Amino acid sequence: MNHFADKLTAAVKAKGNPVCVGLDPRFDLLPKEIQADAEKKFGKSPRAVAEAYLVFNKALLDALADLVPVCKPQIAFYEEFGADGIRAYDETVRYARAKGVLTISDAKRGDIGSTAVAYARAHLGGMEITGGSGVGFDADALTVNPYMGKDTLQPYLDIGVTNGKGIFVLVKTSNPGSGDLQDLEAGGRPIYEHVAEMVNALGAKHRGASGYSPVGAVVGATYPQQARALREKMPESIFLVPGYGAQGGTAQDAALCFRNGAGAVVNSSRGIIFAYKQDPYASRFGESRFAEAARAAAEKMAEELNAALKA
Amino acid sequence: MNHFADKLTAAVKAKGNPVCVGLDPRFDLLPKEIQADAEKKFGKSPRAVAEAYLVFNKALLDALADLVPVCKPQIAFYEEFGADGIRAYDETVRYARAKGVLTISDAKRGDIGSTAVAYARAHLGGMEITGGSGVGFDADALTVNPYMGKDTLQPYLDIGVTNGKGIFVLVKTSNPGSGDLQDLEAGGRPIYEHVAEMVNALGAKHRGASGYSPVGAVVGATYPQQARALREKMPESIFLVPGYGAQGGTAQDAALCFRNGAGAVVNSSRGIIFAYKQDPYASRFGESRFAEAARAAAEKMAEELNAALKA
Repeated sequence: MNHFADKLTAAVKAKGNPVCVGLDPRFDLLPKEIQADAEKKFGKSPRAVAEAYLVFNKALLDALADLVPVCKPQIAFYEEFGADGIRAYDETVRYARAKGVLTISDAKRGDIGSTAVAYARAHLGGMEITGGSGVGFDADALTVNPYMGKDTLQPYLDIGVTNGKGIFVLVKTSNPGSGDLQDLEAGGRPIYEHVAEMVNALGAKHRGASGYSPVGAVVGATYPQQARALREKMPESIFLVPGYGAQGGTAQDAALCFRNGAGAVVNSSRGIIFAYKQDPYASRFGESRFAEAARAAAEKMAEELNAALKA
Repeated sequence: MNHFADKLTAAVKAKGNPVCVGLDPRFDLLPKEIQADAEKKFGKSPRAVAEAYLVFNKALLDALADLVPVCKPQIAFYEEFGADGIRAYDETVRYARAKGVLTISDAKRGDIGSTAVAYARAHLGGMEITGGSGVGFDADALTVNPYMGKDTLQPYLDIGVTNGKGIFVLVKTSNPGSGDLQDLEAGGRPIYEHVAEMVNALGAKHRGASGYSPVGAVVGATYPQQARALREKMPESIFLVPGYGAQGGTAQDAALCFRNGAGAVVNSSRGIIFAYKQDPYASRFGESRFAEAARAAAEKMAEELNAALKA
């Protein structure tokens, strides 16, 4: 099986839930011991932050690997710390792969021509070196931005799909200002529906055995009405659903992004990885058992989503 | 003077031309000697590519620093080679700064809330470490994607502007498919005009002594009619103009992005950095004098643009 949608669908089924864990570390929110250990080794430096992120992420992946089908590291939080941060990002993706957790690189890349090819190779394909080869960031899928047009998305398909990789196109995002452009009406329908048509056209010839294409869609749980409409319009796309928990989306909202209980993964970042700072997990586990707290929070989210999907 | 638009305007004036050099290396297009030296040190590896890119870029910047006001490394070409590539990107930006060349990080980032803050810190602000600090990628400006809405652009202003940095918002891009979304008509005007209004609103309170705001616009030279209209609509924005040369835009097309001979910089990547592979530069300089070839090509572009601006 070398088709992204089939792999993701199988992983969700095998693990019995559609939870995606957002690996979005923040140095000041890490357990004090991890901060202190890293600073002891590398001082107050980007390298210390990178080291701490990696220690934190590995512990989380160790605790979550048998439970969650997919994780989504947000590259911005690593990019903030320059080349050292990017090294930690790279190793996080590799570690997730080694632990059997699929990875969605949340990088929202978008550019033209040979530049799009470079991004596709960076995240989905592997680099090309005359007489040699290698892998950039070996994720299973990449989030991409459609503003520059359909021709800017094609390279991800050309390079990624044959490689068993996928993309998630931003369609309707979860933030308050997502309507500024996405909701504008053109030709009698909002821009996000035009993007949905683009998603369908791109994915059409690539459907896997699961019935889904490797061209997924980002649709926020914070706009349930639009999510319901978009679910109808993109029947062959897996939805990546942000906005659950901290941003206000509920399990019932997220459930609208599914089709017969399948076809979507729902992301939570802070609500899982920093569960140890929030009750009831804070009092139950404390700081040193942050990974167990994350697991308990992920279990609770899985139960809530599964209950909403049965309802 | 700690205002990006003022710095860029002054640099263009001081160097007497609005040429922006795109530092977009490709391993197979580098001089054979640079390829071989890097492979001798690091084998056929990402590290070899990174080493070669840095040698190439430094030689270019040495040859061009007194001539060109600004350069634009496209981060995708570095990201392709993972963390090693990103290290070369980082050092390229630092080297340009040391040589007195302004840098626009062409990364087209875009995301929400705390993620946008992380991108802004990564490229324009400096990271924050409890009790310490540091710099991510120390560029002067960043290209950003508006699809997710105005709230996703604000953090770049909050973090970058006080720091003397700027952004260039994608408005009308140079690629064939740029019209797919950007040209759709909503409320009687194309989406790119809605983005232009967003650019004006964001920049309004930040105008510098030059009359320009730190919120610039990416407007392709390949769509001269739209460029002319957008120049009227965004009088306070500096335009970053891609599409010159290899993509088909002429000096006359690019001139439409200026206002009284100012307010824009025009990018060329391959046409300058790989001039040594193209006649008349190939026969005049040969492979070993690639940096002189780049300088000659940049001089010619400067002359053509200045002539078109006088006409």
